[in-house]
Amino acid sequence: MSAIDEVLARNHAFSEGFAHADLQRAPARRIAIVACMDARLDPKDALGLAPGDAHIIRNAGGVVTDDAIRSLVISQRRLGTREIMLIHHTDCGMLNLDEASLAEELAQDAGIEPDFAFHGFANLEGSVRDSMKKLADCPFLPHREAIRGFVYEVESGRLREVI
Amino acid sequence: MSAIDEVLARNHAFSEGFAHADLQRAPARRIAIVACMDARLDPKDALGLAPGDAHIIRNAGGVVTDDAIRSLVISQRRLGTREIMLIHHTDCGMLNLDEASLAEELAQDAGIEPDFAFHGFANLEGSVRDSMKKLADCPFLPHREAIRGFVYEVESGRLREVI
Repeated sequence: MSAIDEVLARNHAFSEGFAHADLQRAPARRIAIVACMDARLDPKDALGLAPGDAHIIRNAGGVVTDDAIRSLVISQRRLGTREIMLIHHTDCGMLNLDEASLAEELAQDAGIEPDFAFHGFANLEGSVRDSMKKLADCPFLPHREAIRGFVYEVESGRLREVI
Repeated sequence: MSAIDEVLARNHAFSEGFAHADLQRAPARRIAIVACMDARLDPKDALGLAPGDAHIIRNAGGVVTDDAIRSLVISQRRLGTREIMLIHHTDCGMLNLDEASLAEELAQDAGIEPDFAFHGFANLEGSVRDSMKKLADCPFLPHREAIRGFVYEVESGRLREVI
């Protein structure tokens, strides 16, 4: 049995007890979160969010990429969010990622060079600050008053704000 | 009190009862999920996942963008995942998004044209299939045997597979 088949069986149980058919499309708390894809980090649990509360955008690192900006533009301009939380975390695989060896591995396996950057980083707090600045400078986002960055500690479950 | 301050107070309570300090960095179920950022969809709850089980990548629509591919490359090549689930959902804001008016709005507000595509779609299942094909054709991903696409029904909590 594949891992996907296993979780699909769990979805069957989940849908039997489903009680959220009446949620609205626009996030109730008007927050959009950009977080790392890491399996140990669950923004909804860690922030005590309820279903329907917030948009959650995730990628490797939780960095503000063009795709994160695209998603935030939709979130703010079409679905009413006003505040943005950025969440990186301790023990992240993107911290000190060896980009040169990964690029070489891709080029060897695929026969072509990757046409995207990996967005690894050498400093956790520094990367949060870089991402905050990228948002603060983005002219396509109408709401840039409440952009706050955090490091989630996978060891303690605690969010530490990056100033 | 801002919405962010409210959820930070909840993080304090979460971290008090934190019991997952020993999770591994590599996802236990070796699944990576690409899903929409929608506030009503929680992949972890809907699939009965435990902390540490899966990478979760999310963006507006749950479409396979270059950034999703970047994240999946890291996920498969550095963190051991083998299967990929794609999840779009009913009542998505990206379905029939008026891209022309959004582009015009951005250009007017920002004074410059956006340098990214919006990735809206006119057909829900069709978009899942397009994203599946993009992954199946991606030479940078070493594991393309188990790529499956789904529509999550926000009305019922049920995942419907797209064949």
